[in-house]
Amino acid sequence: MAKFLTNKEENYAQWYNDLVIKADLAENSAVRGCMVIKPYGYAIWEHIQAQLDRMFKATGHVNAYFPLFIPKSFFSREASHVEGFAKECAVVTHYRLKMDENGKGIVVDPTAKLEEELIVRPTSETIIWNSYKNWIQSYRDLPILINQWANVVRWEMRTRLFLRTAEFLWQEGHTAHATKEEAVEETEKMIGVYSDFAENYMALPVIKGYKTENERFAGALDTYTIEALMQDGKALQAGTSHFLGQNFAKAFDVQFTDKSGKLDYVWATSWGLSTRMIGALIMAHSDNHGLVLPPKLAPLQVVIIPIFKADDQLAAISVKALALKTELEKAGFSVKYDDRENFKPGFKFADSELKGVPVRLAMGPRDLENGTVEVARRDTLEKETIPLNAVVGHLKKLMDDIQVNIFNKALKFRQENTFSIDTWKDFLEVIDNQGGFILAHWDGTSETEEKIKEETKATIRCIPFDAPPEEGKCIYSGRPSGKRVLFARSY
Amino acid sequence: MAKFLTNKEENYAQWYNDLVIKADLAENSAVRGCMVIKPYGYAIWEHIQAQLDRMFKATGHVNAYFPLFIPKSFFSREASHVEGFAKECAVVTHYRLKMDENGKGIVVDPTAKLEEELIVRPTSETIIWNSYKNWIQSYRDLPILINQWANVVRWEMRTRLFLRTAEFLWQEGHTAHATKEEAVEETEKMIGVYSDFAENYMALPVIKGYKTENERFAGALDTYTIEALMQDGKALQAGTSHFLGQNFAKAFDVQFTDKSGKLDYVWATSWGLSTRMIGALIMAHSDNHGLVLPPKLAPLQVVIIPIFKADDQLAAISVKALALKTELEKAGFSVKYDDRENFKPGFKFADSELKGVPVRLAMGPRDLENGTVEVARRDTLEKETIPLNAVVGHLKKLMDDIQVNIFNKALKFRQENTFSIDTWKDFLEVIDNQGGFILAHWDGTSETEEKIKEETKATIRCIPFDAPPEEGKCIYSGRPSGKRVLFARSY
Repeated sequence: MAKFLTNKEENYAQWYNDLVIKADLAENSAVRGCMVIKPYGYAIWEHIQAQLDRMFKATGHVNAYFPLFIPKSFFSREASHVEGFAKECAVVTHYRLKMDENGKGIVVDPTAKLEEELIVRPTSETIIWNSYKNWIQSYRDLPILINQWANVVRWEMRTRLFLRTAEFLWQEGHTAHATKEEAVEETEKMIGVYSDFAENYMALPVIKGYKTENERFAGALDTYTIEALMQDGKALQAGTSHFLGQNFAKAFDVQFTDKSGKLDYVWATSWGLSTRMIGALIMAHSDNHGLVLPPKLAPLQVVIIPIFKADDQLAAISVKALALKTELEKAGFSVKYDDRENFKPGFKFADSELKGVPVRLAMGPRDLENGTVEVARRDTLEKETIPLNAVVGHLKKLMDDIQVNIFNKALKFRQENTFSIDTWKDFLEVIDNQGGFILAHWDGTSETEEKIKEETKATIRCIPFDAPPEEGKCIYSGRPSGKRVLFARSY
Repeated sequence: MAKFLTNKEENYAQWYNDLVIKADLAENSAVRGCMVIKPYGYAIWEHIQAQLDRMFKATGHVNAYFPLFIPKSFFSREASHVEGFAKECAVVTHYRLKMDENGKGIVVDPTAKLEEELIVRPTSETIIWNSYKNWIQSYRDLPILINQWANVVRWEMRTRLFLRTAEFLWQEGHTAHATKEEAVEETEKMIGVYSDFAENYMALPVIKGYKTENERFAGALDTYTIEALMQDGKALQAGTSHFLGQNFAKAFDVQFTDKSGKLDYVWATSWGLSTRMIGALIMAHSDNHGLVLPPKLAPLQVVIIPIFKADDQLAAISVKALALKTELEKAGFSVKYDDRENFKPGFKFADSELKGVPVRLAMGPRDLENGTVEVARRDTLEKETIPLNAVVGHLKKLMDDIQVNIFNKALKFRQENTFSIDTWKDFLEVIDNQGGFILAHWDGTSETEEKIKEETKATIRCIPFDAPPEEGKCIYSGRPSGKRVLFARSY
């Protein structure tokens, strides 16, 4: 199986696409830019959803659901918001089909034209704040801490499976607060939740920081981001949390009476994380054998493969293997016994590697004799033989080891590919030849940022929260700068 | 709170709408026919989803996700399918907005017209079978047992919250099989899952049966349904499972090689259950005080309300109440301690009744002295005083009692409102004056079925699976009939 994968060192983009297809995660559909998320890919999304949902609820949020469609006029209300999304909106103009009278088959019924066009939501701030207007009168109605799991559509011209698709699945949090301080605190809390999720579940080290004005969400006063480094040296924005100030409250006239009886506009945040994260998961950890999935998000954590020649051997192995499966399931692992008849062990081994199953157990006639099982870990491909009665305890520890090892490997990669650069010449050389994260001084102007982008395709991924104050000169303009910011080419 | 509800005996439709709004389940949005599902309503849907998803997985199904949009041409491929859905399709024709040059604000960019219009899915058979074409070559690729959780759009002209909305949430199963027998078995299995879910979780007694040809899903050879009776004597179709034969396989040219090497078209089923079920839940069990929710699906199972005059009383009660809350949560109940400062106990009592919380615990100074708590059950509104140390055990039993009682009450209502009718005169009288289910003979023709519908608005809800053979004469035509079918007016 694995031989069908392009080597990632040869052609990273092709390796990625091969892997998504061969590991049965997703495929392109008949609709331009829209993907089909296949069961194995969707199972990863279900694990992401379940964990994030727990974290959202633990931080006081509840789920709700708002309409897919947004009246066109709603978009015009917040000027920078419409500017950010207008160019990629799918627009519903009619509500009926009919059989053509001239035999052209099914056509759009021209008499069923909508008075006002509807936009398929690219994000839901406008439709949600139009609802919040009716929900909020007093400070007693605040805060509102709502999350929505939904599909959204942005008409992207160049799409790639998971990373950039016209339709994608995501969650979008939309909160309303009585004070600026509380809204800022929420914005920070949620980038913290994303960072916790990325590092401790996806095993993906991230850098938290502020987006520059250029890179902010359309309509936000501040955007916080988590940025991860992929194995090809490109950055991937893995989640964002926006402080929206009173922009949407003003656009939709959402005012409340505060404790002192004064009217004020409501403060807002929004934050989102999408199926794009599956792309990040693949690109950060996987290798030329296939996926490497962190145990905490792997749909299948253990596969047991029987090694046999004769049917009576299989029967004897199956008894032990199924007992082990039950025992492992009781201990909380998700386990598959791969006793498919038409495939040889070698194929099954390769298949489990392609699918990124964290631990593979092999059981043959000699194992039966000795009361052992062969344990192979996916991340390092190392094998060892373990007494059957010690497997559960061993696997509990091993899963933790794998989770940590995958994270540490990605962290080491990032550390080795993060460069502190002080001259324009070095900047160009690193960007063109090595990629990775570049920490460099910047003069703080959008003009410089845009010129750097034009000349190198590198953008400022973020101004890291923890960037220490340091006097320096902008690598491009030479003007003074107080700290380094994070540059990279990105997905 | 409850006094704001219209009495259901006075105006059932208004009572329903009041209840949905006052209990904070959902509201109409700015988009015609689309609702906002508010957090409390969505929490019920999350419970429905979680349980159904467990049942689907236990029967071997996996989840996946297919595109929101369907190319218009796909619809034309299955003739009866397009006929069924063409009149209510939202159509995407453009993919960009722009700022109007003449100052009219944001307009649809006429240069961004799609070559082929896209339909917002009303159901996904066509886009899914277009994918299955690439997934299925041999009998080894079968069966495919996929479910999708998704939003769908049907441009309904008259809408009602949950019961009939332009956009709704649902799950749609789409399975592919090598033989007709296996597909029929799947169709039966899934109507069984729905029936199990309706009766044992929603506490909603249902009648399983076949739809008549007129009432079948557009594109199905057979539709199985579960039909429930609402308190106003109208029926509600609560879930359907369709045997699609080879219709979609033929429309999308999906053939496979069977074990003997012969090519054949693949056999299909589809089955769906939607947010409409929340409407059924409300209408089947609730009363003039508000919602009555079955414990198995209630977002909140227990509310604890402190009764106090002075602040030091509240402090003493809170210690006990919070300890009880923790104890109940450990036992698996979802519990809220309602210590809101600005509301009196009477308001909180009414609020817990409006929201349908199955069990309310009240704790006052006397309870502190006596080591007791007052337990009120929502379904019967009965109260009793229980020793504090017996509450957990008592509630375990009580929740089961409530679950069963709600079901039995609904079953009794249905039994009392199911009429075996033998003459057209009686049929008219019952339909006009009493409503309910009518078991009557029918001659088996669509013509008669349509005339009965025209004259009475009653439809054949189903031909019950368990209808015993019985010689009789059609109530409308007088022609011979071999068994009774189920008539009702319906939602």
